[in-house]
Amino acid sequence: MELVQKNKCFDGEQQVYQIESKYLKGKTKFSVFMPTQALQGQSCAALYYLAGLTCTEETFVIKAHAQRLAAQLGIILIAPDTSPRGENVAQGDSWDIGQGAGFYINATQAPWSEHFQMESYIINELYPLLNEALPIQADSIGIFGHSMGGHGALTLAWKYPQFFKSVSAFAPICAPSLCPWGEKAFTAYLGADQSTWADHDATQLVLKKGALFKEVLIDQGLADQFYSQLNPEKFQQACQSVDQHLTLRQHDGYDHGYFFIQSFIDDHLQFHALQLQD
Amino acid sequence: MELVQKNKCFDGEQQVYQIESKYLKGKTKFSVFMPTQALQGQSCAALYYLAGLTCTEETFVIKAHAQRLAAQLGIILIAPDTSPRGENVAQGDSWDIGQGAGFYINATQAPWSEHFQMESYIINELYPLLNEALPIQADSIGIFGHSMGGHGALTLAWKYPQFFKSVSAFAPICAPSLCPWGEKAFTAYLGADQSTWADHDATQLVLKKGALFKEVLIDQGLADQFYSQLNPEKFQQACQSVDQHLTLRQHDGYDHGYFFIQSFIDDHLQFHALQLQD
Repeated sequence: MELVQKNKCFDGEQQVYQIESKYLKGKTKFSVFMPTQALQGQSCAALYYLAGLTCTEETFVIKAHAQRLAAQLGIILIAPDTSPRGENVAQGDSWDIGQGAGFYINATQAPWSEHFQMESYIINELYPLLNEALPIQADSIGIFGHSMGGHGALTLAWKYPQFFKSVSAFAPICAPSLCPWGEKAFTAYLGADQSTWADHDATQLVLKKGALFKEVLIDQGLADQFYSQLNPEKFQQACQSVDQHLTLRQHDGYDHGYFFIQSFIDDHLQFHALQLQD
Repeated sequence: MELVQKNKCFDGEQQVYQIESKYLKGKTKFSVFMPTQALQGQSCAALYYLAGLTCTEETFVIKAHAQRLAAQLGIILIAPDTSPRGENVAQGDSWDIGQGAGFYINATQAPWSEHFQMESYIINELYPLLNEALPIQADSIGIFGHSMGGHGALTLAWKYPQFFKSVSAFAPICAPSLCPWGEKAFTAYLGADQSTWADHDATQLVLKKGALFKEVLIDQGLADQFYSQLNPEKFQQACQSVDQHLTLRQHDGYDHGYFFIQSFIDDHLQFHALQLQD
């Protein structure tokens, strides 16, 4: 775990690390915000943030404006990259597939299966590594994300509820099996047989596994240019049908980008802080 | 004044405009954060932010994290580009001269003098245009900036105290006549005759024109990789010698970048809000 950058920030430290990932079969970067409490060795809650299409481990750090309140609340923020990277890694034909578009699943289809193992990377490699390396309170870890990363947060939370105590999302892709982005990615990464898709679709996971969290928070802009890809109502219906408590806030005039996210980031941090201290 | 982008942000709007500038002789962009109060037509205080070397009108908007508190305080934030731009605009031999490095002065030397008229652009074009186009309270306008833009903020404040009621800076170039960045830029833009430089050097302007502001705030990181270019102590001495009240805060461990700026941006907004409501 090589520290490649650090900058003091709100009395804590914004860091970037690089590791050689066995699942991604290559170098990958992730960023960590360490509040001053964590730098002093105090055990802290941690929040994984999964970013959306075209983003990297830098996007959240620069654009989401989360450090101020995370510093106050004493929360460690962790942001992995959105896919494997490198010259020897398969590249897609556009920005919504391949590098920058890992969808937080394990690809089973060539050429993607060689490197695109984002689910295993996060759950079986990054998560235990950071629990070991950082002063993380193991029973106070939450996950959130945006768009493709909102899909990632919801699905990883429903797949691994023992790992994540709280989950929220900004404009998540709630039903990837039913939207162009998801259909394209799942066909490429998982193959055309849609029976394999259900386990990676947040709406279907909720229907299958039921209510797993005390509360889930989703913020959605009503001027979101990608609204038709997101299907928050389908996720809401699934939650209702299994009695999963969901707060779905729909915000007039907000679009899909980080000006929307920064406007509500504090609410998400407060939401997780409350859930994680329970 | 063409609106080229807008995004809802903290119930206000983050906007980007483009104009054809008569001083820069070409198109230039600037960004404006309009708090909801301003969108509703209420007269608001305004703050000009001048960015540093290599930056654009976007940098402050994405990296400084100022919108949250500006929305609460009802302050309009204005961020111009850092130089003229375009294929027909002179380009320098490196990142510290030419496009992205306008130094907020009017060049007198070829080839720069043709387009590099940033001082006149801001003071005689942008400022009156925005006072006309936006609901700005004309007697509640402040200016701040970072590095080269900190130099810009201090010098424009001392040159045009009738236009700016408050001034602050992050890691400003306080004595450009005495540091490599400033020597290179001033030689190129103003010529080798250093007698012309004094009117564009914050430290010398303070010595010449005396105390003009009730209070000035400067934040400086002590791990700033460009500390030797900045000379805050020289500016402090000049302020002391003319009884200009200056709060120079030196912060252990902080570097020159926007993680430093975001850590103290709220203090600057509060500082200006207090000065501007006087």
